[in-house]
Amino acid sequence: MRRVGVGPVWIVKYPQMNAFHGHSLIDGGLHAGDGGVFRALCARDQRELPGVFHRAGLAEVDLAMTAARRDFPAFRGVPGADRAAFLERIAEILTGCEDALIERIDHEAGLAESRVRGELARTLWQLRMYAEIARTESWRDPRIETAVPDRQPLPKPDLRRMLVPIGPVVVFGSSNFPLAYSVAGGDTVSALATGNPVVVKAHAAHPGTSEIVGGAITSALRETGMPPGAFAMLHGEGARIGVALVRHPDARAVGFTGSYAGGRALMDAAAARPDPIPVFAEMSGLNPVVILPGALRGRPLEIAAMLAGSITQGMGQFCTKPGLLLLCEAPGAHLFRDALADEIRRVAPAPLLHRGIAEEFADGCRNALAHPAVTALADAGNGRPVLAETDAAAVLESPVLRHEVFGPFALIVRCAGVDECRRVLRSLGGQLTASVFGGVGDPGADLLDDLADIAGRVVVDGVPTGVEVCDGMQHGGPWPATSDARFGAVGPRAFLRFVRPVAFQNTPDGLLPAALKNANPLGLLRQVNGIPDTGKIGS
Amino acid sequence: MRRVGVGPVWIVKYPQMNAFHGHSLIDGGLHAGDGGVFRALCARDQRELPGVFHRAGLAEVDLAMTAARRDFPAFRGVPGADRAAFLERIAEILTGCEDALIERIDHEAGLAESRVRGELARTLWQLRMYAEIARTESWRDPRIETAVPDRQPLPKPDLRRMLVPIGPVVVFGSSNFPLAYSVAGGDTVSALATGNPVVVKAHAAHPGTSEIVGGAITSALRETGMPPGAFAMLHGEGARIGVALVRHPDARAVGFTGSYAGGRALMDAAAARPDPIPVFAEMSGLNPVVILPGALRGRPLEIAAMLAGSITQGMGQFCTKPGLLLLCEAPGAHLFRDALADEIRRVAPAPLLHRGIAEEFADGCRNALAHPAVTALADAGNGRPVLAETDAAAVLESPVLRHEVFGPFALIVRCAGVDECRRVLRSLGGQLTASVFGGVGDPGADLLDDLADIAGRVVVDGVPTGVEVCDGMQHGGPWPATSDARFGAVGPRAFLRFVRPVAFQNTPDGLLPAALKNANPLGLLRQVNGIPDTGKIGS
Repeated sequence: MRRVGVGPVWIVKYPQMNAFHGHSLIDGGLHAGDGGVFRALCARDQRELPGVFHRAGLAEVDLAMTAARRDFPAFRGVPGADRAAFLERIAEILTGCEDALIERIDHEAGLAESRVRGELARTLWQLRMYAEIARTESWRDPRIETAVPDRQPLPKPDLRRMLVPIGPVVVFGSSNFPLAYSVAGGDTVSALATGNPVVVKAHAAHPGTSEIVGGAITSALRETGMPPGAFAMLHGEGARIGVALVRHPDARAVGFTGSYAGGRALMDAAAARPDPIPVFAEMSGLNPVVILPGALRGRPLEIAAMLAGSITQGMGQFCTKPGLLLLCEAPGAHLFRDALADEIRRVAPAPLLHRGIAEEFADGCRNALAHPAVTALADAGNGRPVLAETDAAAVLESPVLRHEVFGPFALIVRCAGVDECRRVLRSLGGQLTASVFGGVGDPGADLLDDLADIAGRVVVDGVPTGVEVCDGMQHGGPWPATSDARFGAVGPRAFLRFVRPVAFQNTPDGLLPAALKNANPLGLLRQVNGIPDTGKIGS
Repeated sequence: MRRVGVGPVWIVKYPQMNAFHGHSLIDGGLHAGDGGVFRALCARDQRELPGVFHRAGLAEVDLAMTAARRDFPAFRGVPGADRAAFLERIAEILTGCEDALIERIDHEAGLAESRVRGELARTLWQLRMYAEIARTESWRDPRIETAVPDRQPLPKPDLRRMLVPIGPVVVFGSSNFPLAYSVAGGDTVSALATGNPVVVKAHAAHPGTSEIVGGAITSALRETGMPPGAFAMLHGEGARIGVALVRHPDARAVGFTGSYAGGRALMDAAAARPDPIPVFAEMSGLNPVVILPGALRGRPLEIAAMLAGSITQGMGQFCTKPGLLLLCEAPGAHLFRDALADEIRRVAPAPLLHRGIAEEFADGCRNALAHPAVTALADAGNGRPVLAETDAAAVLESPVLRHEVFGPFALIVRCAGVDECRRVLRSLGGQLTASVFGGVGDPGADLLDDLADIAGRVVVDGVPTGVEVCDGMQHGGPWPATSDARFGAVGPRAFLRFVRPVAFQNTPDGLLPAALKNANPLGLLRQVNGIPDTGKIGS
């Protein structure tokens, strides 16, 4: 039934639950590797889970990247409607895998059923959103300037520009979104929708989940007649094949969600290539929240409850978890603080995603609490949520208090007033989000400037967790929140990372790509001589 | 009259021809430096020109960058109409400098009056185009999604996204466009228009031209009430202050036009920062041109004349100069070749931009002609244009024949047919342009795919020189043509390199930036819930 070897051997049967083949998916076939095997551990009790996974090696890296490069011209040439059908078929197959995913993710990531259902729904929605983008070819963004032969002193040529895919994209899935930002997540679907082959390095914390999802993509690829090199998924632990993927000559861009150290290592490898390629890394953040006197006067308990939920939702393992709370010393501050500590203490224990994260969380809490100016307000141990408190001077002086602690940890920073809040904000690096709770008369627009200065998203009277996937969203901020604040992995513009413009000058209509032809056969909204237009050009 | 020292001392009188102060322009004042002095050499006869220029040192780098960072909040807060007035005032002052610029550029770059007039006109036009972009704030690209409080299962928040400037931009002017891509060129104006302070490293080949233009910008800055740190220009030779500018903690992005070695050095320095920043480098290219049998049948002499003009225009010192001509062996090929060689031989001698370029040109020609498979078709020596010929096998085997020779040099590559042309194209790195001349029945769409694969612009039946500045243009291609093929330095989208999106979530109308307010006070075209809209939001 299943063959292990080189070449485009399509997977015959898929998925089978609790019968993991454990191989990397390359060029439509299953491949082992020379790196031995590993097993996934249960996030809840650390016991070994079913399935033996083979670590891919450098040969598999080369196979996958070479197949991606080989099939890039064919895949980018697929009509948008067919690429849309491919993405929709992935969504259909994944829908049928819901029970299997719920069972496996419960073990591999310790995430409850409701969370998995919600994340799967978002993943399916992203697939369908990008299917629509692929079908309509709206992403081409055509800009046409027609010729002016009698312009003086020189004729103006006919120039028509559109976006094209850049080539094989390497994707590193995150551990905290085993569906929505992993094998079939935002990086993968935005790259595939725009005609780029994708090679995914599966996260070693959820190889079984990855096998299910990767199998769904591979099956959809076969069923909808896509070239087999357009998708691959490699298993592995550690940095070895990750860096090899980034260094491979056929890689054209990298999407990464994970730690600062991991993102930086990939960026350094990409920058040192003979031909540097971009790495879009989403790495870390404190997501500071300013709590102004007006908010403390009006509704300290309500805000404490909102923040407690935001800090501990998903056990604090979201990239937008608020980790630093700048609390103005004002009437109501004590009430807020005590209420927040109470709420945090009441949160039921839950497992963290994997042992590495649990250890880093414990280390991070220990380092923060060891600071002489830091007091624990809630610290029940055993991986339960932690709330601590310090003052602005300590944060300004101590870089350790400005480090992210991934997991359910937050640090209250007492600030004498708005000016001290602003000094603390200015001491921080770039952030995905920066939030403020205010009341009548505050915040001022100047504080919002400070928030916007360091973050990609400013939230007023709300918490930063819960990232709406829409065109108004920006999920990406200045360094070190992300490697390139001009882009983001979330939403309908994530594909912009993986496309480049090409202009066609004086090109006969018969040779132009469909998006640029006079007749506008795709019915696109185009800029024609500076004016938005959905019609034809000429008579 | 003139003061040399630290601090915001506005230049009192400007410009004075042939009375160059020779200082760097920082924070509204004149600054010398600790690196001694240098003089400009005449491109025509290598004699020393009037003016003694002081090399800026690390202290000046820090002064300029610190002032830029200090004044960033003030400068980005300037209303668009005022930034527009600033750019228009630069254009006005430069208009008054036309005679001085013609005189100085004639010496510093060996460019004739007609060329300088044309380039100045383009520079003024770029300033006015970006003034309009600044005035209308159209660059903000607002995308608004209004709240849906009763959405299930969760309310949808109000999200409003727009583009904001990133901060101080370091610009390295090019030697071959002393106006349009130098001190007040495309990089500078696109950054200034969108609220980014700019620090220019003046090209050491045209320090006098730079002083005139930098003085115009500084005067306009003062006259229109801009903060003095929004613009600086530093003199220097070699890489020392260049790398220091790129490494400075306050630099947020870099624009560079020049050699591959220079661009790569800056990229490596930027990538090694604790906080890597993007370098937008436009570096090199061969700009291959394919000449198909159909073209040779129909009009070999006409095409030869067009290409001779393109190869030798501006003494071949354009980034889009066609350097590699893939000539199909077909009837008419000999006629084409002989005619091209005749045209090239007839070109009147003219100086190259500066001694370094003249030496590199001589070396590049010598290296190519030393190849045993290369024959000279036109080679009059003394820096005059050179045409050589070889076959496809030699180019495929010898990397040296795929190196750019900057200046009036082109290599004809005999190809047995279209397939061999495609093999040669695929052996090349990324290019700014790739062109094809065809006739009835050729080229095919598959050849256009190959051209688009390696280039940012595909030209059919035309020459690549002459870069139209418009929205349909793409001036930037895959590595090593540019460092990031998604962007370009030419045209109305060049500013995209220097902005990032910020989203505002649930922000009261009173606190929103003007571009995002319900009333749409700027009258912008905005995406509102997915639909282009120029009106207000709500009742």
